[in-house]
Amino acid sequence: MDSPLDTILNPHGIAVFGANNNFMTMGTGQLANILHGFPGKVFPVHPVLETVLGQKAYKSVLDIPPEEMVDLAFIVVSAKNVPAILAECAQRGITHAVIISAGFRETGNTMINEQLLATTREHGIRFVGPNCFGFYNRNVTWADEGSEAMINTTLIPTNLQNGGISIASQSGTFASHIFLPAQRIGMGINKTISVGNEANIDLVDCLEYFEQDPFTHVIGLYIEEIKRGREFMKVASRIVKSKPIVALYVGGTEAGARGGKSHTGALGGNDKIFDAMARQVGIIRAMSIEELLDYCYILDVSPLPKGDRICILTNAGGPGVTMSDLAERLGLQVPMFSAGFQDKLRDTINIPTAQVGNIVDLTFDLDPEKMYRTLPRMILKCEEIDGLLLYGIIGYQFYQLFQDIAPILQLPIEDIKSIQLTLLDHFAKLPFKLGKPVIAAALFGREDAAVSYLLDHGFPVFEMPHRAVKAFWALNEYRKIRERAERRETNNRRESLVKT
Amino acid sequence: MDSPLDTILNPHGIAVFGANNNFMTMGTGQLANILHGFPGKVFPVHPVLETVLGQKAYKSVLDIPPEEMVDLAFIVVSAKNVPAILAECAQRGITHAVIISAGFRETGNTMINEQLLATTREHGIRFVGPNCFGFYNRNVTWADEGSEAMINTTLIPTNLQNGGISIASQSGTFASHIFLPAQRIGMGINKTISVGNEANIDLVDCLEYFEQDPFTHVIGLYIEEIKRGREFMKVASRIVKSKPIVALYVGGTEAGARGGKSHTGALGGNDKIFDAMARQVGIIRAMSIEELLDYCYILDVSPLPKGDRICILTNAGGPGVTMSDLAERLGLQVPMFSAGFQDKLRDTINIPTAQVGNIVDLTFDLDPEKMYRTLPRMILKCEEIDGLLLYGIIGYQFYQLFQDIAPILQLPIEDIKSIQLTLLDHFAKLPFKLGKPVIAAALFGREDAAVSYLLDHGFPVFEMPHRAVKAFWALNEYRKIRERAERRETNNRRESLVKT
Repeated sequence: MDSPLDTILNPHGIAVFGANNNFMTMGTGQLANILHGFPGKVFPVHPVLETVLGQKAYKSVLDIPPEEMVDLAFIVVSAKNVPAILAECAQRGITHAVIISAGFRETGNTMINEQLLATTREHGIRFVGPNCFGFYNRNVTWADEGSEAMINTTLIPTNLQNGGISIASQSGTFASHIFLPAQRIGMGINKTISVGNEANIDLVDCLEYFEQDPFTHVIGLYIEEIKRGREFMKVASRIVKSKPIVALYVGGTEAGARGGKSHTGALGGNDKIFDAMARQVGIIRAMSIEELLDYCYILDVSPLPKGDRICILTNAGGPGVTMSDLAERLGLQVPMFSAGFQDKLRDTINIPTAQVGNIVDLTFDLDPEKMYRTLPRMILKCEEIDGLLLYGIIGYQFYQLFQDIAPILQLPIEDIKSIQLTLLDHFAKLPFKLGKPVIAAALFGREDAAVSYLLDHGFPVFEMPHRAVKAFWALNEYRKIRERAERRETNNRRESLVKT
Repeated sequence: MDSPLDTILNPHGIAVFGANNNFMTMGTGQLANILHGFPGKVFPVHPVLETVLGQKAYKSVLDIPPEEMVDLAFIVVSAKNVPAILAECAQRGITHAVIISAGFRETGNTMINEQLLATTREHGIRFVGPNCFGFYNRNVTWADEGSEAMINTTLIPTNLQNGGISIASQSGTFASHIFLPAQRIGMGINKTISVGNEANIDLVDCLEYFEQDPFTHVIGLYIEEIKRGREFMKVASRIVKSKPIVALYVGGTEAGARGGKSHTGALGGNDKIFDAMARQVGIIRAMSIEELLDYCYILDVSPLPKGDRICILTNAGGPGVTMSDLAERLGLQVPMFSAGFQDKLRDTINIPTAQVGNIVDLTFDLDPEKMYRTLPRMILKCEEIDGLLLYGIIGYQFYQLFQDIAPILQLPIEDIKSIQLTLLDHFAKLPFKLGKPVIAAALFGREDAAVSYLLDHGFPVFEMPHRAVKAFWALNEYRKIRERAERRETNNRRESLVKT
C-alpha cells in the first residue's frame, strides 16, 4: 500500500517528543497508552530527563542508536519548536510524523504554520495534524497474526473489541472518547485517525487508505469542512460501491461553522450543499454522534436487507407501536402479513390476546423458546418481509429480582439462565444464517445479562427502540446506494457497448 | 381530592384476583411486586389455593373478614370472569378496581366489553383498564411520612429513586419498563398509570389527578388516541401554567394507528392535527421514548432558563461544535461573548490554545477546579447567557486506567478522587444556586464515577451531547409556554377590566 498512513499507523519504532513524567501533560498520557499494547519500540526524546515513564530517554532524536529502526515521529511540544524537531527527524531518516501540537492555523498563527509547511515540504515529510489527537490501530500489520498487538496514541486508554469500523475525524473526540460508548454497544473499531488541521494528510487521504485497508469494512467521518471537494466526491463515490461511508457534518450552520473555525480553523459550508453532495455520492448522513456510531455499528455487524419491509416482533405494545410509527416516518414499510401467514403465527403463539397482523405482539408470554427461536425463524423465512425488529430482550436477572423480593417463588434461576443462554446463542446467529437483518431493542441496557450476552456476541441490541428502527433505516439506505451504483455501472457498460 | 385515582393509587387493602404460585402467570409476578414495599394489606382471592405467595388466600372476596378494610380490586383473570368478580366486589363494598385482564375492545370482543360496562355502571365502580399493566406510586399518602412505603402493581420490580415525574400511558411499557432507563439517568418517578383501553378512567382523569397531586411536578403522556379531545385540551391548557406536560403521540401515521388499534383498540388521528393541538395547548411533544424520558427528567431537576442563549463549555472541540450546530438547528442561540468577557475568560483559562468566543474550549487541561468551579461560576454569572451546556465530565477512573497500564506514574488516585468529589458536590448545586440551567454531557456513562456521582445527586448528565442540547430546548420550550400563558392571562384581565 503506498499511502503514508500505512507507515504512520503501522510504525516499527516511534520517537516521542513532549512526554515526561508529569501526568498532567498531554504527551505523557499518550506515551502511557502507546506503551500499552504496541509491539514496536518507543524512544522518548527529552532535553533533560534520563528516563520517561521508565523508558530510556534521548537528548536528541539523533542520539538514538543508528541500528534502531525509527519510522515515526510523535510530537507533542510547543508549536514554535515543531519545525526544528521535524528537520532533525528528517536528518535521522524519519519522514512520517503525527503532530499533536496546537497553535497553528486554528489560532491564526500563520507564520509558524508557514514554517511547518516549508520544513516538511523541504524534507518530503508526510504528517497527520497539527492540532490533532493521535490515532488508534487495532491491527498492526507487521505484528504476528492473531497477536493482540495494537497501537493507541490517543489520550484515552482502551481495551476495545476489534471490528471492521474505521473512523477519520476532524475532532480528536471521535478518534478517542468514542471508545467508551463503542464499548457499551459492542461496537468493534479497527482504526481511528484524528486529522486535526489537515496541513498535509487530509480526509481524502484517509478515505483512500481505508479503501485499500483489508481490515476496514465501514468508514465513519466527522467533518467540519471538506478541503478537496472534487477529490473527496470522486474517492467517496468509488468507495461506497464496496464499503459504506457514514458522515456527521456540522459545518453547515452559522454556529457550527464558527465553532469549527476556532476548533481546527475549518471553513464550514452550506448545510444543504453538503446534504445534496452526500446524496449524490451515496454517503449516509448522521445527525448526531450517536447516529454516527449506531450506523457504523449496524453496517459492520448486520447483513443488508433486500428491501424495506420490516416485521416488528414484541412482547410490549407501546414500544412496538412507537417503532412502527417511526418506521413509517422514515419511509420503511411495516406490511400487514397475509391471512395465511397470520394463521400460522396465531397457531404458533397460541395466546388469545396476541396480535399477528404485524406488529406481532405476544402480549404476555414468558416462553423464551417462542421469542428467541420459533417466531424469529418463522418470520425471517417468510418472504413478505426483509428484516426483523425485536423488542423484548430480557435476561435471567429479571427472575433474580423476583427471587430476591419473593424467595417463596423458589425460581430455578440457574436452569432459566442456561436455557436462556442456549437460545440466545441460537438467536444471535439468525441474521447471517437466514440472510436478513435482525435488530433488537431493550429498555434494559448492558446491566441486563441477555443484552450483554448478545452484545458481546456481536448481535445488535439498542437501548432505545427508535435507535433500532434508525439502524435498519441505515442498512436499507446503504442497500439503495449499492443498487444505484450497480445500475449506473450497468448503464455505463451498456453505453460503452453501444458506442463501440 | 375527589379523583377515583386517589383511592386507586393509595389503597389500604387490595383484593388480588388471578395470582397463584406459578411465576409464569402475570398476576403472580404482579402480586410479588405488590408485596414488596406496600404498607397496606393484601388479600389474594383464589378458588382452590390455601395460600398464594405465602399469603392466606380466600375462596371469594366475600370471605375476607368484614373488619378488614379492602378498597381496591386488582384483577388478572380471563376477561369472561371479570364482570362477575366486579359484582361480588361491589357486594363487599369495593368500588375501585384495576383490570389487567385483556381481551375486550382491542380483540373485538364487544359482548364482554358491554357486560363490563353494564356491571360497573350498575355498581358505580370506577376502574383503570381493562388491558392495562397496573400502576406505580412512590408516595402512598396515608403511610407514615418519610417512610419508604410505595406500591408497585406492575410486573417490573424496582427500587427507583423518588422524584416529581408522573406518567400516564396507553402502553404498560411506559408505566413499568421505563423504570430501567430512568434508573440509568437518575430520573425520579413519582407515579405511573397504565390506562389500557380506558373503558372508564382515561387520560383526562389522569391529568386532573396529577394536576392536584402535590408530589407531581412534571407530567409525561404516551398517547395512541385521545378520547375526550375537548376536555383533554381544556384540562391540559390549565395544567401547563403550573406543571409541564410532555407527550409522545404515535397514532398519527398509518402504521402507528394500525398498531394502536390492535394494541388498545385506539383510533389514531392525524399527526398534524395532534401537532397543532399540542402547540396550541402548550404540550411539549417528544418523538421517541428517549425524548419523553429526557424532557420529563430535565424539567424535574433543572431551573427554567430566562431566555434561549446558551454557553457551551467543553474540553473537546468536536462535541462542542456538534452541540453548537444542533443548538442552532433547534432555534437556540450560541452568542459570541463580548470582548470584555472573552478577556476575562482568557485570563482565567490561561492556555494559549484555548477558545473563548463561545464555544469556550479548554482544549487540553486536566485542572478540575477550572472545569467544575471557576469557569461555570463565571459563565453562569455573566448576563450574556441563560444557561450552560458542559462537555467533559470525567471521573477519577480515567486516572485509575492510567495507573493500571503505567504503574510507574504513581498517581495519587485517592487524592484525585477526594478533590473531584468535593468539586462535583459544589458543581451539582450551581443550577439552583445561580438560577440557570446547567446540563452536562459525557460519552462516558454511569460506569464513570463522576457521571454516576452527579446523576445520584440529581444533576443532569446525558450520555450523548445531542441529548443535552435537546434537554435545554425542552426547558426553553416550557419557559415560552409559561410566558405565553401569562401574557394571555394578563390580556384577559385587561379585557375584563375594560368591559367593566
